[in-house]
Amino acid sequence: MDQPPTLAASSPDFPLDTLIVNALLVAGGPECRVIRDGALGIQGDRVAWTGGPGHQPPPARVVVDAQGAVVLPGLVNAHCHLPMSLFRGLADDLALDAWLNEHIFPAEARFLSPETVTAGALLSLAELLLSGCTTVCDGYFFEDQVAEAAVLAGIRAVAAQGVLDFPAPGVPDPRENVRAAADFVTRWSGRSPLVTPAIFCHSPYTCGPDTLKAAKRAAGDAGALFQIHAAETRGEVEQSRKILGKTPIAHLHSLGVLDAQTLVVHAVWADERDVEILARSGAGVAVCTASNMKLASGIAPLPGLLAAGVPTGLGTDGPASNNRLDVFSEMGATARLHKLATGDPTAVGAKTALFLATEGGATALGLTGLGRLEPGWAADVVVLRPDRPNLTPAYDPVSLAVYAASGADVRHVWVAGRQVVEEGRLLTLELAEILAKARSLAKRIGGRGA
Amino acid sequence: MDQPPTLAASSPDFPLDTLIVNALLVAGGPECRVIRDGALGIQGDRVAWTGGPGHQPPPARVVVDAQGAVVLPGLVNAHCHLPMSLFRGLADDLALDAWLNEHIFPAEARFLSPETVTAGALLSLAELLLSGCTTVCDGYFFEDQVAEAAVLAGIRAVAAQGVLDFPAPGVPDPRENVRAAADFVTRWSGRSPLVTPAIFCHSPYTCGPDTLKAAKRAAGDAGALFQIHAAETRGEVEQSRKILGKTPIAHLHSLGVLDAQTLVVHAVWADERDVEILARSGAGVAVCTASNMKLASGIAPLPGLLAAGVPTGLGTDGPASNNRLDVFSEMGATARLHKLATGDPTAVGAKTALFLATEGGATALGLTGLGRLEPGWAADVVVLRPDRPNLTPAYDPVSLAVYAASGADVRHVWVAGRQVVEEGRLLTLELAEILAKARSLAKRIGGRGA
Repeated sequence: MDQPPTLAASSPDFPLDTLIVNALLVAGGPECRVIRDGALGIQGDRVAWTGGPGHQPPPARVVVDAQGAVVLPGLVNAHCHLPMSLFRGLADDLALDAWLNEHIFPAEARFLSPETVTAGALLSLAELLLSGCTTVCDGYFFEDQVAEAAVLAGIRAVAAQGVLDFPAPGVPDPRENVRAAADFVTRWSGRSPLVTPAIFCHSPYTCGPDTLKAAKRAAGDAGALFQIHAAETRGEVEQSRKILGKTPIAHLHSLGVLDAQTLVVHAVWADERDVEILARSGAGVAVCTASNMKLASGIAPLPGLLAAGVPTGLGTDGPASNNRLDVFSEMGATARLHKLATGDPTAVGAKTALFLATEGGATALGLTGLGRLEPGWAADVVVLRPDRPNLTPAYDPVSLAVYAASGADVRHVWVAGRQVVEEGRLLTLELAEILAKARSLAKRIGGRGA
Repeated sequence: MDQPPTLAASSPDFPLDTLIVNALLVAGGPECRVIRDGALGIQGDRVAWTGGPGHQPPPARVVVDAQGAVVLPGLVNAHCHLPMSLFRGLADDLALDAWLNEHIFPAEARFLSPETVTAGALLSLAELLLSGCTTVCDGYFFEDQVAEAAVLAGIRAVAAQGVLDFPAPGVPDPRENVRAAADFVTRWSGRSPLVTPAIFCHSPYTCGPDTLKAAKRAAGDAGALFQIHAAETRGEVEQSRKILGKTPIAHLHSLGVLDAQTLVVHAVWADERDVEILARSGAGVAVCTASNMKLASGIAPLPGLLAAGVPTGLGTDGPASNNRLDVFSEMGATARLHKLATGDPTAVGAKTALFLATEGGATALGLTGLGRLEPGWAADVVVLRPDRPNLTPAYDPVSLAVYAASGADVRHVWVAGRQVVEEGRLLTLELAEILAKARSLAKRIGGRGA
């Protein structure tokens, strides 16, 4: 995480590049420390200073007045398919197989190209930054375009090239699938401080054992994250038990692909033994609450995962199945759903939800030093608006962030010390151009969408 | 619904007061008709004209360019306790009885006054209008202050004075509870075209049979809506069965208080017989999805209510239990939750959710001519922002409104033909003053909250 080149180096006169004052500062971490009337100093790509009333901050080149609003760590979206924003709303309210086979797969086969992947990724990245997400884990095809879009946007990304055992966008020959992914990881290793390349096997039912093992080996050789959808639907688990004699997660375990560099996505139907397997392996999990609700997939065993110590984050999933990329909404939905599912309103509280969407998610992705606003941690910072009735009064800023805020309440965002959103406007991308491009492509895809 | 006095009468030269052009017009109604490249004309407090490409609209004094964005009927919030925004986030992640008895009831007993009720109501009304809600059904105490706040805000309100069989804010003597409510209805009958007075008995467990019957009689005599919480928690139903030998809804039915002028709030634990009772009685139901999730109350039998033809709307519930008043979020949460609960992603689709949050809710509240954008219907109109990545592309504007939008995507709002929000700014209330007042009161209530 070197300092981005656009930032001037700090000087002895101004040890801080940016100082955010009048902050209702949510420092994060498992205990979610809050500093009222706080301030936060950024130097380079790191938080360099935090303090409360009575603490004199060092001088700073730029001072930003949060006007008493909530300031919190940038949010981590632990699972997405960024380019699929081009298919947002193309088809909804359908059974999963009809949605996938009759709408999404045909649209992908027909319309995916480097051009459309870039356009869809930029559209999603604009949405993410504007709604306070500073790190996203993506899994898709033409992933070079996604990674380049992330660099343009100035967002942190774990970008994973997709692997399927049938012809895929950009990888027509399945025999090349693992090599294409490994080559992607090689191309992006060390290329940008913002992009961490990775490999994304779609699922145990679309990737055979040899592919899974080869892809995991390639990821392991490069020290890269290996991610995979598993146990998303009841049908998938039933089929796996019938064909393989074990659950998808037990199958992955038996192939040796679960370890601390693996991210299992969904895990909705993980049973107690699966949770044990995950915990012992060190693998992380991305829980996708809103998508799992909309597709009627089920409820992930989040309290069990947390009790077992599985590193867990929250993912929006792709914008064709959610249909928005608002990690604030994911926090609120996740806390509410698990209270409902357990019948216990003390289950999955606001602090837990915020942890999952910050440091917890970063840990699940294998990223360290990310997700708290403490000196030495990454300067990924979100400042909420001070003038929103839904964020007033402020008895508890963590409750506000989880239960009352939406991504549209975000005012300023920094990623790695660089301001990327100011007063609700993107500084890194031309939003109007991105919207126009997406609308133009949508006319081709759906015949409408202007 | 007379024309508000602030509107000049239309003249023969300008048959329309306002014409909204370049609209992706969601007309509403059960079939949810959509007009692309549409326009909508307002005259007085009604929609006077709608049309698509090739239709020449009449001249208008003011033309508003929606820039291709979604235009939809103003949303109806079928259940709220507006003044409780002052207690938003005061206590969360607690069991219902601890939350109520240790935090909310003591705070209400100590701090409710005409002053605080006005401040809390204005804060909530600002939030509602800014997020596209144009009609709210409230139930609380010091309801004159709530009704006055609604008139100031320029929002439609069904305002219901609370009734409890113990000392209540503003009604220290329970023997006066029904008379106080009846007097409130009398005072507000015909007083404002925006305010429909009503009576709110808190619940069957806080109001005895005599109170319920007397309150219903008073409401009936005045032609006013009678609303009541019922079957919110499993414990409430169990207690009712034990003490009264019947469910809360069967109990209300046996007292004769269920009819087409009754709104039952929550109905989470309504069983099949209760649903039948509701359907035969003509009573409406307000479903409060997010609140019922957060308090771990349960899942209302929405598909059953709809199949039985029960007039049903969506309520946010109060801002201390939700904790936001965003009917867009309620639509999305409701559709997602019932897909999940039924295991069927085709259950409760986007069109159904939008209907519940517009015409369906209005019907449940006993309001007619409200919730569609068709000539002759109320000119309660919401225009979304054209520049939001989460609302792009626009294959299906209903899907966008339900699954991708949040209240913060609202750009313009009209209530009864009067513009109340322009470019995301309130035209009717001084937001800065309202926020400052709420913060000042919060310091007294919570010792913090600046």
